[in-house]
Amino acid sequence: MLHLLYAPVRVNGFVCKNPMKVNADDFFKAANLDKPRVTNKVGSNVTLINVMQIAGLNTLGISIARIDYAPLGQNPPHTHPRATEILTVLEGTLYVGFVTSNQPAPNRNKLLSKVLNKGDVFVFPVGLIHFQFNPNPHQPAVAIAALSSQNPGAITIANAVFGSDPPISDDVLAKAFQVEKNTIDYLQAQFWENNHN
Amino acid sequence: MLHLLYAPVRVNGFVCKNPMKVNADDFFKAANLDKPRVTNKVGSNVTLINVMQIAGLNTLGISIARIDYAPLGQNPPHTHPRATEILTVLEGTLYVGFVTSNQPAPNRNKLLSKVLNKGDVFVFPVGLIHFQFNPNPHQPAVAIAALSSQNPGAITIANAVFGSDPPISDDVLAKAFQVEKNTIDYLQAQFWENNHN
Amino acid sequence: MLHLLYAPVRVNGFVCKNPMKVNADDFFKAANLDKPRVTNKVGSNVTLINVMQIAGLNTLGISIARIDYAPLGQNPPHTHPRATEILTVLEGTLYVGFVTSNQPAPNRNKLLSKVLNKGDVFVFPVGLIHFQFNPNPHQPAVAIAALSSQNPGAITIANAVFGSDPPISDDVLAKAFQVEKNTIDYLQAQFWENNHN
Amino acid sequence: MLHLLYAPVRVNGFVCKNPMKVNADDFFKAANLDKPRVTNKVGSNVTLINVMQIAGLNTLGISIARIDYAPLGQNPPHTHPRATEILTVLEGTLYVGFVTSNQPAPNRNKLLSKVLNKGDVFVFPVGLIHFQFNPNPHQPAVAIAALSSQNPGAITIANAVFGSDPPISDDVLAKAFQVEKNTIDYLQAQFWENNHN
Amino acid sequence: MLHLLYAPVRVNGFVCKNPMKVNADDFFKAANLDKPRVTNKVGSNVTLINVMQIAGLNTLGISIARIDYAPLGQNPPHTHPRATEILTVLEGTLYVGFVTSNQPAPNRNKLLSKVLNKGDVFVFPVGLIHFQFNPNPHQPAVAIAALSSQNPGAITIANAVFGSDPPISDDVLAKAFQVEKNTIDYLQAQFWENNHN
Amino acid sequence: MLHLLYAPVRVNGFVCKNPMKVNADDFFKAANLDKPRVTNKVGSNVTLINVMQIAGLNTLGISIARIDYAPLGQNPPHTHPRATEILTVLEGTLYVGFVTSNQPAPNRNKLLSKVLNKGDVFVFPVGLIHFQFNPNPHQPAVAIAALSSQNPGAITIANAVFGSDPPISDDVLAKAFQVEKNTIDYLQAQFWENNHN
Repeated sequence: MLHLLYAPVRVNGFVCKNPMKVNADDFFKAANLDKPRVTNKVGSNVTLINVMQIAGLNTLGISIARIDYAPLGQNPPHTHPRATEILTVLEGTLYVGFVTSNQPAPNRNKLLSKVLNKGDVFVFPVGLIHFQFNPNPHQPAVAIAALSSQNPGAITIANAVFGSDPPISDDVLAKAFQVEKNTIDYLQAQFWENNHN
Repeated sequence: MLHLLYAPVRVNGFVCKNPMKVNADDFFKAANLDKPRVTNKVGSNVTLINVMQIAGLNTLGISIARIDYAPLGQNPPHTHPRATEILTVLEGTLYVGFVTSNQPAPNRNKLLSKVLNKGDVFVFPVGLIHFQFNPNPHQPAVAIAALSSQNPGAITIANAVFGSDPPISDDVLAKAFQVEKNTIDYLQAQFWENNHN
Repeated sequence: MLHLLYAPVRVNGFVCKNPMKVNADDFFKAANLDKPRVTNKVGSNVTLINVMQIAGLNTLGISIARIDYAPLGQNPPHTHPRATEILTVLEGTLYVGFVTSNQPAPNRNKLLSKVLNKGDVFVFPVGLIHFQFNPNPHQPAVAIAALSSQNPGAITIANAVFGSDPPISDDVLAKAFQVEKNTIDYLQAQFWENNHN
Repeated sequence: MLHLLYAPVRVNGFVCKNPMKVNADDFFKAANLDKPRVTNKVGSNVTLINVMQIAGLNTLGISIARIDYAPLGQNPPHTHPRATEILTVLEGTLYVGFVTSNQPAPNRNKLLSKVLNKGDVFVFPVGLIHFQFNPNPHQPAVAIAALSSQNPGAITIANAVFGSDPPISDDVLAKAFQVEKNTIDYLQAQFWENNHN
Repeated sequence: MLHLLYAPVRVNGFVCKNPMKVNADDFFKAANLDKPRVTNKVGSNVTLINVMQIAGLNTLGISIARIDYAPLGQNPPHTHPRATEILTVLEGTLYVGFVTSNQPAPNRNKLLSKVLNKGDVFVFPVGLIHFQFNPNPHQPAVAIAALSSQNPGAITIANAVFGSDPPISDDVLAKAFQVEKNTIDYLQAQFWENNHN
Repeated sequence: MLHLLYAPVRVNGFVCKNPMKVNADDFFKAANLDKPRVTNKVGSNVTLINVMQIAGLNTLGISIARIDYAPLGQNPPHTHPRATEILTVLEGTLYVGFVTSNQPAPNRNKLLSKVLNKGDVFVFPVGLIHFQFNPNPHQPAVAIAALSSQNPGAITIANAVFGSDPPISDDVLAKAFQVEKNTIDYLQAQFWENNHN
């Protein structure tokens, strides 16, 4: 179960260690998930504890995160390419939702959304675009989320589409988003802050 | 991804519904995970939100729980037969640990334990016996745990061994636990309360 | 391996049939994948043969598609939530790419792109945003793609974000995409055609 | 399929070898599964042939064992954290059983048991506590068991709970098992022999 | 874990039952695996206990078989499309082997074979063509084999190639096997007995 | 997702590289799948693009192939031990089929076959023996096939049975195929050309 090697070799891309030297710290992180973090431009911070923080998680298929939301802050539309997410609200209120895929009507691109209060639980199925928004202009919100992979990945839609390095051709994006190329150019010139950090 | 059927048919043992009638409530539970629950004889309560509470979780491989610990309360030694657990402490302090399997020495039945404070994260690998104990005689503790299955199962060791219905033969248990049969009989006569509820 | 039931019951959401009545047609589709299809507004059509067309594919983890591209047509940025895609070009030239997830720098949101000629092969890893564009203003292009699921799903980013039903709040999208709310409103008023059909 | 590396590198924790040097011995073990083994204090010996004995088993998801039972011997309550077990009796009689998990009543901690004769087959589902007992005071018994993992693991309940190194706090165990701390201390002072060897 | 439904519905093609009615017999079979079976024309009988004999095996990924070999009998070249096999010899001697796939030389179609004595263990990796042969002209042999699926399937090569219903075109087979069509016609006219029963 | 290591270490048997050095070429192959290949003795060539050609495919569970068929050429009976195949015809006509396993009658060794025209799609389930034959004496045929593994393997039945190195004992094969030993010896003396290359 543990991928623990003699040499500094990586399995699933992560360094392994000698199984004779396993100890409790390989399954532990002083993660400070009780502490609010300064939020960024979109008004949220995701503090993810995955296999990069806890080596013992490798192959075990789970990770956990604290998410802080400033007043009117949001965790903008994003996907996890390798995980389903389950979230519970610790503080405040969240308007959350996900959009179904290109299925046959009437389920095509259907938004399933809900306002969550403290203690509520919501599920975002693997790979679907989803978001959380704190509609309260005065109070922050806090959630704990768990993901069904030790390395779930996160793709913030706007960042990946308009902030990639190098940029995607504006010919492609203008037609895809039905806007003028100069709108795309404007968007690509913005700073797309990563709130998963 | 969703197992949603016309008839009241079960997949993985759970009732499915018509995919044309999916809505946000299939992914939602007003779970009250913000609220402490009265604890029981061992001094803990596990409030698990799994596929039985949220039908949309089926096949998605994750669930979430709040665990309350009274002062000196514990979540007694148990296993999850189908899931790894990742836990973070919301309130208080926990002494936690798991025991490795019958591996070759020096890793045989090794206890890996840690004292966790607020915000710390710990991992209990799938199927291993583990526990959490609140060492504080005056203050409760609270944790959020996530599990890598929509139906992880929980086996409280003492309950399954000494409280099964019908009882396991005391001949078997006396030899297995190296005690007299009347000690086994005494144990089997106790009430073994389930704290996963 | 086959999910074939007496009653019209669904497994993975698909109708099953009596295993005593299996025949070659359960593994066959006169799919016309040799024929170009009239392309739509974005200038492409994806003709996917999945478990909805071939019942025998259920649980077997693969599907196949023909993609037609008009001159300057594109298969706009999209993801497959449950599949990796491998593509080969039959006719013409394609500029293709995918964007990595929010990994630590220098791999954050990195665009990996390539110009593909006839006979070339390219891979789009599961869940990552990718696109194909026919840069030739005069000639169409054609590709065959295979996906590692019998029901891979497709999420066209622009459609899911700006064309969901009901719409995502423009408060959320304006901040997420760093534009004015009236730009979002304009986008949400457009017709977002589905090219996976 | 084979994890065979040039360097002495481990995958799943096991040493791999150069794929150019594979031969029949990588899939073979002169395991002596036809021979009774001297039994230990609990009156049983499990001779498991897993990936540590046959390197070619890596990733293939199966292993096999012979189990010897002295008259009145037992394979005490234990779990396999990563495997289901299927067992057939070669010689003698066995009283076997497993206990279900903390499910809702009436299935909570239900003991499913059976007396097995020569040639009978029984299944112990993954992760559930189970045992085998030879009720015959005069004759030994023998079984062959197969497990659905190349590295199933075994956790003997009494050994892991009372014989861990270091010991679990007797405060925890006394409350968990509803006995006095000196009973726990007595148990922790015993020698807990490993019968999986 | 159990697929147990109210209606006579099938999951993975097998009938499920009400989970409230589970009992030990769902995990048991009086399989008579201690008894030799009359062998057939190829001189062997495989007595497989899979999910069709023990309903509780569904989804658990394992099955077990006894194989009897007459003097000079064989279990002819075959594959298991969904399982690896691990085998131990209970009585007699077996010459066993498997052939690797069309890999690059020098591993292309390499025969890995071994003579097994009582108590020896050998592994046949998933999907590879393998056989067992009892070279002793006077004594029978017996083996126990376990397979890594509750429904491993078996494809006896000669039977599937020359005994299919309807027959494969002799044009195809003559060229494939580099023989005259009348040799194929002769082979297709034979009775191809199934020794997995 | 990527198995990319510092040292030249192999995961799943394939060399990994430093994740800091990933680029588009790790997901690309100038595979020339648009070009016919000279066919061999059986009249077909399989040009498979798998993880050995595109390192980025590792763990992603898919590969793709072009298959050329000379007039009256065939892809002789074979299996893929680790993959289902889905095939579409680009040029010409193919008579294709697969044979079911040793199931209970009436499904035992049933041939499911079909004549495919351009644009048709057919599925060959994992591990089953299947073939394609071009019945046209004047025109070649071309197909694209996709497989549900990055390393599906291919076992040409005649080659593995009669062309293994070293040969399988002719005692075994004569009885298995119900022919004289000198017929087996004749077959084993032939050259069994590999058309997967």
